[in-house]
Amino acid sequence: MAGSRFEYVRNFELPDPLLPETFMLCRLDGHSFHRFSDEHAFVKPNDERALKLMDHAAQDLMSEFKDIVLAFGESDEFSFLLRKSTSLYNRRHTKIVTTVTSLFTSCYVFHWPKYFPDTPLKYPPSFDGRIVLYPGDKHIRDYFAWRQADTHINNLYNTTFWALVQQGGESTTQAHATLRGTNSSAKHEIMHSRFQMNYNDISARFRKGTVIVREEIPPSTDEHPAKEADFAPDPPAVPSKKSAKSKEKIKIKTRVELLHCDIIGDEFWEQPERLYLLRD
Amino acid sequence: MAGSRFEYVRNFELPDPLLPETFMLCRLDGHSFHRFSDEHAFVKPNDERALKLMDHAAQDLMSEFKDIVLAFGESDEFSFLLRKSTSLYNRRHTKIVTTVTSLFTSCYVFHWPKYFPDTPLKYPPSFDGRIVLYPGDKHIRDYFAWRQADTHINNLYNTTFWALVQQGGESTTQAHATLRGTNSSAKHEIMHSRFQMNYNDISARFRKGTVIVREEIPPSTDEHPAKEADFAPDPPAVPSKKSAKSKEKIKIKTRVELLHCDIIGDEFWEQPERLYLLRD
Amino acid sequence: MAGSRFEYVRNFELPDPLLPETFMLCRLDGHSFHRFSDEHAFVKPNDERALKLMDHAAQDLMSEFKDIVLAFGESDEFSFLLRKSTSLYNRRHTKIVTTVTSLFTSCYVFHWPKYFPDTPLKYPPSFDGRIVLYPGDKHIRDYFAWRQADTHINNLYNTTFWALVQQGGESTTQAHATLRGTNSSAKHEIMHSRFQMNYNDISARFRKGTVIVREEIPPSTDEHPAKEADFAPDPPAVPSKKSAKSKEKIKIKTRVELLHCDIIGDEFWEQPERLYLLRD
Amino acid sequence: MAGSRFEYVRNFELPDPLLPETFMLCRLDGHSFHRFSDEHAFVKPNDERALKLMDHAAQDLMSEFKDIVLAFGESDEFSFLLRKSTSLYNRRHTKIVTTVTSLFTSCYVFHWPKYFPDTPLKYPPSFDGRIVLYPGDKHIRDYFAWRQADTHINNLYNTTFWALVQQGGESTTQAHATLRGTNSSAKHEIMHSRFQMNYNDISARFRKGTVIVREEIPPSTDEHPAKEADFAPDPPAVPSKKSAKSKEKIKIKTRVELLHCDIIGDEFWEQPERLYLLRD
Repeated sequence: MAGSRFEYVRNFELPDPLLPETFMLCRLDGHSFHRFSDEHAFVKPNDERALKLMDHAAQDLMSEFKDIVLAFGESDEFSFLLRKSTSLYNRRHTKIVTTVTSLFTSCYVFHWPKYFPDTPLKYPPSFDGRIVLYPGDKHIRDYFAWRQADTHINNLYNTTFWALVQQGGESTTQAHATLRGTNSSAKHEIMHSRFQMNYNDISARFRKGTVIVREEIPPSTDEHPAKEADFAPDPPAVPSKKSAKSKEKIKIKTRVELLHCDIIGDEFWEQPERLYLLRD
Repeated sequence: MAGSRFEYVRNFELPDPLLPETFMLCRLDGHSFHRFSDEHAFVKPNDERALKLMDHAAQDLMSEFKDIVLAFGESDEFSFLLRKSTSLYNRRHTKIVTTVTSLFTSCYVFHWPKYFPDTPLKYPPSFDGRIVLYPGDKHIRDYFAWRQADTHINNLYNTTFWALVQQGGESTTQAHATLRGTNSSAKHEIMHSRFQMNYNDISARFRKGTVIVREEIPPSTDEHPAKEADFAPDPPAVPSKKSAKSKEKIKIKTRVELLHCDIIGDEFWEQPERLYLLRD
Repeated sequence: MAGSRFEYVRNFELPDPLLPETFMLCRLDGHSFHRFSDEHAFVKPNDERALKLMDHAAQDLMSEFKDIVLAFGESDEFSFLLRKSTSLYNRRHTKIVTTVTSLFTSCYVFHWPKYFPDTPLKYPPSFDGRIVLYPGDKHIRDYFAWRQADTHINNLYNTTFWALVQQGGESTTQAHATLRGTNSSAKHEIMHSRFQMNYNDISARFRKGTVIVREEIPPSTDEHPAKEADFAPDPPAVPSKKSAKSKEKIKIKTRVELLHCDIIGDEFWEQPERLYLLRD
Repeated sequence: MAGSRFEYVRNFELPDPLLPETFMLCRLDGHSFHRFSDEHAFVKPNDERALKLMDHAAQDLMSEFKDIVLAFGESDEFSFLLRKSTSLYNRRHTKIVTTVTSLFTSCYVFHWPKYFPDTPLKYPPSFDGRIVLYPGDKHIRDYFAWRQADTHINNLYNTTFWALVQQGGESTTQAHATLRGTNSSAKHEIMHSRFQMNYNDISARFRKGTVIVREEIPPSTDEHPAKEADFAPDPPAVPSKKSAKSKEKIKIKTRVELLHCDIIGDEFWEQPERLYLLRD
């Protein structure tokens, strides 16, 4: 049956394709996670369980969407880079951003009991999402540098702050006052002199955030099939009005790897297996 | 600390406000729910548990977002009408559609065990979302009529189809062949003559879908406070460059109600408490 | 010949349809007309030749685009209302706004010598254009009221200002100082007491701006064909994915009329022939 | 006076900034120029006067908008490349595209009598405009190659076609039939054998279209000021939420040059003065 006389309302649905051959950066942020982390008694300044749960959801996303080649997470946010040639959902903006946000949210709730076995969810958490387009490689490097610099700034502050509160016996108001106007080395000094803490001994996960990279696996000669979850073919390349069906598709195998390394300097980006990230 | 030299990447985030004083219709659809319903052994042609779970998630959304004044659900989709004057998130398109989609997804996973106590989730389900703008009352009525006509068409087909398979012993291929080209009354006749089924005896939930309305509660004189979840003040009205702070806000109390009634004819819309739906 | 291997660059052209069944308001503004009016010695405070030239260009536009049903002009700007059902260029935003702006500009330069026979154009004038969507009748009425209120405010100020300068011998600096903080009746009083001017005696064109309406001509029985320029069939109605070809088109004849009347009050809008303006 | 109670209608004007640091390609096309060229008796297959008029309008545009670094014209169309860092009108889409289209149209009408002294304009010509964004250098090279390949294909066809008609005495119907299915060398052969024409002897303006480049002028030591029209400072660079006012602006002088050369091959692009085109 073809439909009803009401079907004309579909004409109000307008197309929203994103510019071709441009990087898509999709960032998800927890909605009211200040309250959410309080209600679920997250450890301060960093709750490793909560961070690992975020990482797990992010990895699930990268298993589902092979065009995500790089991700970075900190606190209650995660950023995903889609390769610039992706034709995911024909580059329809709303379709992509809602599907990615929904699946991430679903994974977060789904895996919650694994990371918080003794803390039942009190209410459903949610995230918002956005996609920002970037035309050049430089913008992508600077985007990830921006997020990791933010991680550093926030974590240094929070670590010192909670040391003052938890070990120094200051009230939160006092601790904020103590830190007002302090620069980076003053915070290091407070931690060192008052609490014998060396900031660099803190877990790299907390200091650097989580980096998840997709890497190409060079074709091997022995032809043993790779594991489904880690090794997956890449999606079709450049979008085109003429279908790319006739184009011979070379299935490149990839794997994802979770790191807590510096991504501001050149070293990360110049490794041969990273060149894949900013290519087509 | 003000930020880093990388912060310029924020300039690539572009504004996306939706046209003011225009109805927003937000529709969510299950992603690959054909497979999902198979994997979780949904009852055919309608699984009441699954539909009630959808309804529960939709009601949670309406508790969270007071500007949703009407919702309609069927199968794995739900549509939400936001009043035309809503200033939710300053009418930012992506912020609204991702937040709504995320929260619905989260509620779905969160409440799953209540409706499927013996069927653990095998993997995280997801939804996509979209927002369509409609300028006129007529478009809104026709939109909801479109969805309910779709419910009727699909449910009549599916009910007859599964009767042929489950009670008539036909294969699914045979059943599709039996129904090819049949009109509405032929399907009624098949059900009636072969299986002694009267289509109109089937649950209204299956035949009509789920309608959730928000209604104004006339201000009472006794001033007993309403329950938090059901009675909530409306959000600020018309968006404006000049803040509406000075405007005297009249807090209108509302409640939501779940129905399985006809929304194609005039009767539903002409009841006094429904006039609220299409007003500002 | 089909094209070249470079043709893929067309894929970067993105669709930009405007929301269906919503009023389009297209406003054109002179670019740097302060300088332009000085260079071409426009009479202050109002140059009737320049205003008539604007009106002429606007009428040409309404002859070309039958879906423009109302226009309002003042100073170096003109606003055009397209009926909400217009399917002009399939409602493609950029196509409509650039074509309208271009044709208006062209008419302005083309007709210049008729209105300024002794003042050759020194350089090419230009305009910018924009389209704003409005969902409701009320918004359209308020839009035109906004522009005519602006005409009144500006013209009252300018008329008093130039009386002070041209007849009162004040410098422009003095005249601005004289008017600082004066309200409407103070300006009337200055004109009356110092220069024996009655503001209401000034040309309605200056006080009210120019209103151009399209009106339906009731079908006559004598069937004499109307003049091409003034009487033209309306374009196809509601846009639809399914082509409207099969729909029987009723050719409504219309004419345009130029007025300098009030459009803020109800009277203008309530005349039977004006009901056409806000209908489909 | 601050405005009226109707001013809220401005809230319906939505922002439309274009993605930063991305090339803007603005293409203008004549509206119904088939008819326009007939009515004004353009010479077939190419009217040099009409082409020079287009070139003149394009050069005026490049004098006005210093961020246009390259232009290409053929027939009744012209394409303009804006440098990717342009902050013209804060990159507002509609403002840029309407202003450019309007000024070009105005120049075309304004200069008409210089190129057609004996052919008065019968009616006002118009153009439509569009802006397409391109993220990479390669897309820009391919865009211009696409237009010049189009010039070649069309001109070869038209030249042979009109030779058959004007010199060969064929009707236009016959000439189309003669050319149906012919490839490039067949057309060369027809011209050569039947009309002793060598296609390559035809004016480069017709075969290659018009290329207008902006080039940097190296700072000289003698400091003699350049002519206003040809040598102009560049506009401010990268857009930024923080104003770039404090940034020291180096005023680079540029000149524009009109060419009829190949722009498909590498040679054009690899000349040192051309590197400017695709830089910031």
